Amino acid sequence: MSETRILISEVGPRDGLQSIAPVMATRAKMAWIAAEAAAGVREIEVGSFVPAKLLPQLADTAELVRFARTIPGLTVAALVPNLRGAQAAVEAGAHKITLPLSASETHSLRNLRRNHAQVLDEARAIAEFLGSVPSARRPRFEGSLSTAFGCTLEGPIADAQLARLAEQLMTAGCDELGLADTTGYADPAAVRRVIRLVRDAAGAAAVSGIHLHNTRGLGLANALAALQEGVATFDSSLGGLGGCPFAPGASGNIVTEDLCFMFSAMGLETGIDLEALLEVRKIVADALPDQELYGFTPLAGLPLGFHGAKQQP
Amino acid sequence: MSETRILISEVGPRDGLQSIAPVMATRAKMAWIAAEAAAGVREIEVGSFVPAKLLPQLADTAELVRFARTIPGLTVAALVPNLRGAQAAVEAGAHKITLPLSASETHSLRNLRRNHAQVLDEARAIAEFLGSVPSARRPRFEGSLSTAFGCTLEGPIADAQLARLAEQLMTAGCDELGLADTTGYADPAAVRRVIRLVRDAAGAAAVSGIHLHNTRGLGLANALAALQEGVATFDSSLGGLGGCPFAPGASGNIVTEDLCFMFSAMGLETGIDLEALLEVRKIVADALPDQELYGFTPLAGLPLGFHGAKQQP
Repeated sequence: MSETRILISEVGPRDGLQSIAPVMATRAKMAWIAAEAAAGVREIEVGSFVPAKLLPQLADTAELVRFARTIPGLTVAALVPNLRGAQAAVEAGAHKITLPLSASETHSLRNLRRNHAQVLDEARAIAEFLGSVPSARRPRFEGSLSTAFGCTLEGPIADAQLARLAEQLMTAGCDELGLADTTGYADPAAVRRVIRLVRDAAGAAAVSGIHLHNTRGLGLANALAALQEGVATFDSSLGGLGGCPFAPGASGNIVTEDLCFMFSAMGLETGIDLEALLEVRKIVADALPDQELYGFTPLAGLPLGFHGAKQQP
Repeated sequence: MSETRILISEVGPRDGLQSIAPVMATRAKMAWIAAEAAAGVREIEVGSFVPAKLLPQLADTAELVRFARTIPGLTVAALVPNLRGAQAAVEAGAHKITLPLSASETHSLRNLRRNHAQVLDEARAIAEFLGSVPSARRPRFEGSLSTAFGCTLEGPIADAQLARLAEQLMTAGCDELGLADTTGYADPAAVRRVIRLVRDAAGAAAVSGIHLHNTRGLGLANALAALQEGVATFDSSLGGLGGCPFAPGASGNIVTEDLCFMFSAMGLETGIDLEALLEVRKIVADALPDQELYGFTPLAGLPLGFHGAKQQP
């Protein structure tokens, strides 16, 4: 496995910050993005193109996309809920846009106020729009199948529904498909089963990445299971930012630091300097002094002798 | 994998309680052991036969072994540091005794004040003594290779040393061999590699169980890796008792509740009623009101629709 190249996609500036009440200053976000890119993180989701009145925490997304684009080698990603968001993302210069489709229609109606057919219409509209964008400015278009492992409102999602939605997202014109365990319901067996199911339905290249939560402590075990199915792109959030994994409704993103430690310890190449990554926490902690940050590795330190580490903190 | 039968070996009453300052009342320990057995846990390490002046928290181990033996179907395990401990364990009626041998000789000298040769002498003396015990009263004898994945004093342990010690423990007369990640240094790749290495050196049946810590958040991912090598016995501690995983030197045992949730969610048979197990936390919390308990699943609750669960808490 030593040649596997892992891509960590940092989602803290979007998924983390949208889940907490404090609004981080744009300058602090820029410092965070720059420092994490300097530590070797090659993809960062910097925000979401939603109306500022809905998510004031992310009102500066366009500015962040423009800033992040100046960082060499960094893939600048943004969430878009609809065509208007996709247009704004292209205008700002995003390299990758992600449209979420909740596998649970109840969740989709509650969160996006759209049923499945309406979200798929939006996907087709975005794909059509992207077709008109010159290729040099055209972002990769990811469809993200959220609540893929179960929903707090509906419970389990039927396999047939997952397969159908995956196929429909790809047919609508998505370039790639991600899976998201929005609710922290996944387990390692389900991760492997759903990846295979979706690939059977939507093509071998369909599952480009996975977005896992640590709500029940299984986040890294689930990441390992996805890796074993050949998934090599993993969303995670620095400091697990995005709410306490203990609180109902909290996001509980898997922690970038622990995820990187796991892959690095396994001898997999992430391109990330773990010690530099651990330093980035200070920027977030300083900017959000009342926000608890999570993660085991940051507090335990690196093992003695780990890739040249001299001592524990 | 649905037919795999998992054995969770609860080590909280020993490894958890020896790591914290408060002494739990014997009656509370008995209530804990009884409730956890009633929830379906089939093996519990109830204590350690060490001098009471060294570990006053475990001074009632003999009494607990006698009590736990009255619970039908429960395997009563105890740690023994030497021949004298083994004799006391047999006298009390333990079904299983575990002698730790630290793969790091520095750690062995610091913790047990014995070098490898001295611990192996003790293993031989215990095996000889057990040979004289009538078979009906003879416990299974496990050698536990601790700091197997690295040591906070020595760093990495050489493969050749692990292989040699594993072979020597079995040759000394152990019935089975466990691996312990005492320091929380393991990763999934190392778990699989070391299990294979030890089996190559000491026989295919050598690795009976594994004892993992969650110091860097990888505990359940490491358990998954061990499962994939065919290991089916897992030590864990209710509420992760045994110290904060964040504090240097803390044990950070993996959490029984999260481990059971993972296996159960994967469709593996543990024999444990998860909702009943979650109730056992109250006994420990009441008996140790100032002790923080860990675990994600206890606070997040079971997923909606999980094995018939109706709702989140």
